[in-house]
Amino acid sequence: MEVSYEDVAAAHARVRAVAHRTPVLRSATVDALTGASVFFKAENLQRMGAFKFRGAYNALSQLTSAQRKKGVVAFSSGNHAQAVALSGRLLGIPATIVMPTDAPQVKLVATRGYGAEVVSYDASNEDRQKIAEKLAAERGLTVIPPFNHPHILAGQGTAAKELIEETGPLDILLVPCGGGGLLSGCALAARHLSPDCRVIGVEPAEGDDGLRSFRSGRIESIPLPKTIADGARTTALGTLTFALIRANVDDFLTVTDAELLRWMFFLWERMKIVVEPTGTLAAAALLENKLDAKGKRVGVVLSGGNVDLAWAARVMAPGLLRKD
Amino acid sequence: MEVSYEDVAAAHARVRAVAHRTPVLRSATVDALTGASVFFKAENLQRMGAFKFRGAYNALSQLTSAQRKKGVVAFSSGNHAQAVALSGRLLGIPATIVMPTDAPQVKLVATRGYGAEVVSYDASNEDRQKIAEKLAAERGLTVIPPFNHPHILAGQGTAAKELIEETGPLDILLVPCGGGGLLSGCALAARHLSPDCRVIGVEPAEGDDGLRSFRSGRIESIPLPKTIADGARTTALGTLTFALIRANVDDFLTVTDAELLRWMFFLWERMKIVVEPTGTLAAAALLENKLDAKGKRVGVVLSGGNVDLAWAARVMAPGLLRKD
Repeated sequence: MEVSYEDVAAAHARVRAVAHRTPVLRSATVDALTGASVFFKAENLQRMGAFKFRGAYNALSQLTSAQRKKGVVAFSSGNHAQAVALSGRLLGIPATIVMPTDAPQVKLVATRGYGAEVVSYDASNEDRQKIAEKLAAERGLTVIPPFNHPHILAGQGTAAKELIEETGPLDILLVPCGGGGLLSGCALAARHLSPDCRVIGVEPAEGDDGLRSFRSGRIESIPLPKTIADGARTTALGTLTFALIRANVDDFLTVTDAELLRWMFFLWERMKIVVEPTGTLAAAALLENKLDAKGKRVGVVLSGGNVDLAWAARVMAPGLLRKD
Repeated sequence: MEVSYEDVAAAHARVRAVAHRTPVLRSATVDALTGASVFFKAENLQRMGAFKFRGAYNALSQLTSAQRKKGVVAFSSGNHAQAVALSGRLLGIPATIVMPTDAPQVKLVATRGYGAEVVSYDASNEDRQKIAEKLAAERGLTVIPPFNHPHILAGQGTAAKELIEETGPLDILLVPCGGGGLLSGCALAARHLSPDCRVIGVEPAEGDDGLRSFRSGRIESIPLPKTIADGARTTALGTLTFALIRANVDDFLTVTDAELLRWMFFLWERMKIVVEPTGTLAAAALLENKLDAKGKRVGVVLSGGNVDLAWAARVMAPGLLRKD
């Protein structure tokens, strides 16, 4: 299925009335550290705390009335679950979310708080996709995949559309990459609105399947990566996201968990925003000087802010905090 | 010295080119909890992390060339120090900041980072105002007071001017109150731009000198208050701020430190923004249902976000976090 910039623009027409137009934040400190003019698209300030709302709402709002009546099902322990739950509530579509029994309590509560039905499964010996497909078959539900779907990725691309419409053309756009929905959608927007912009995907070092696939020219799978960037714990890109990434993305970078933590708390302390580890990927690549950004206009997507504060307090050891 | 809305408008013309136009944030969760339509003016996202930059820049930019050449002096261990230091750097005016020897290392580093000279004093047996005045006399420096000055408070009022220009008329405006610079300036803006708006100052319960003064009709002094809201550890309003508060403010509320902590972490976790205890005062009063806001359009000034993350991690005990 072809996806183009027109799909991103159409998604924006659907999404803009309900999503926050998140602010584009600047930091004189970041500009001084990098020598660049940096524009942060603060999707951590999006509804339910992440860009995922854009894609889920775009997908759910295109269902037929028969599909809407029966409802949707998604499998996720993270932001996609809350995005589908919230979109379902706003559109009056029943949502069922398949979540592991050991999912964080706070995410269970949030997902149920948006009115979704949560179906638990044992992650050690059950396959969540099969459970979702079984539920879909039995109840006639529509499965809403987390990234490999044209409506999902077109919705995610509206984040970069808003960013570039506000900033004007960029030299570089840095985007976190898990399954590639955000990256492929944002790349579509950047190609159209800022054709000379270099689009760079950023992954956790332990979850570099996207980089490997980008280099080898075919989808490379890796074992479930161990990283604090829980939104990028994906084992492979999707067929659709990979094709769009090959066509529109210029490069990939990776950052370690230690680098993520250092710059995550930098964003908290200096920019006064709560960003989750996955949401810090693009910013960390820039601030670790992993690319030459001097004199450039650089867009950075901060993709989400859903972090357990009790966890953050535990890892906030003084040695991890850069005080310069 | 008379101060009017025209001074706030003139301040805005000076400040808008250098200050961030901070975003006005919404939260569906807060609207649901309060039954109101709540507009948060996120001054924690202002340059140097607080509204204080507005007033300091407005004051420094009105100095004569002779005054600019000799420089300025301020006494503060908090946000005013960084505001004067940053404004001095931007305007090429040498800044001297009188800070206690036991000021947090992070604030010393930040103030010096903006190029200011830091003069230390022993808070237990030296008077900072006298030291500043001695320095001013010896070196011909201009003293930049933290709140009781027409240029300072007119600058702070630009926060409410921007808020109301973006939201349209409000029913209620809640503003943190320490020495009253932010409150008196914002009240001037609200009176002019939204004449029917009730303007309410919010203080820490232990530092309720403003409420007492508002009720008694004369400036009441209290001993240095013990509260985590370090930006509101003031012992009395100023003559100028008190007169403007009497003329333009409708009421005062107070919140306890426990209430501040609960809602500070709520703002971090739910709205994904880092707000300091003082910056949480107005939001906490609303979220603790200390006023009837149902069906109302309510503006809330989040005044700053300069918080030591190591301190936050220590106080982030699970019992303080509301998880509903």
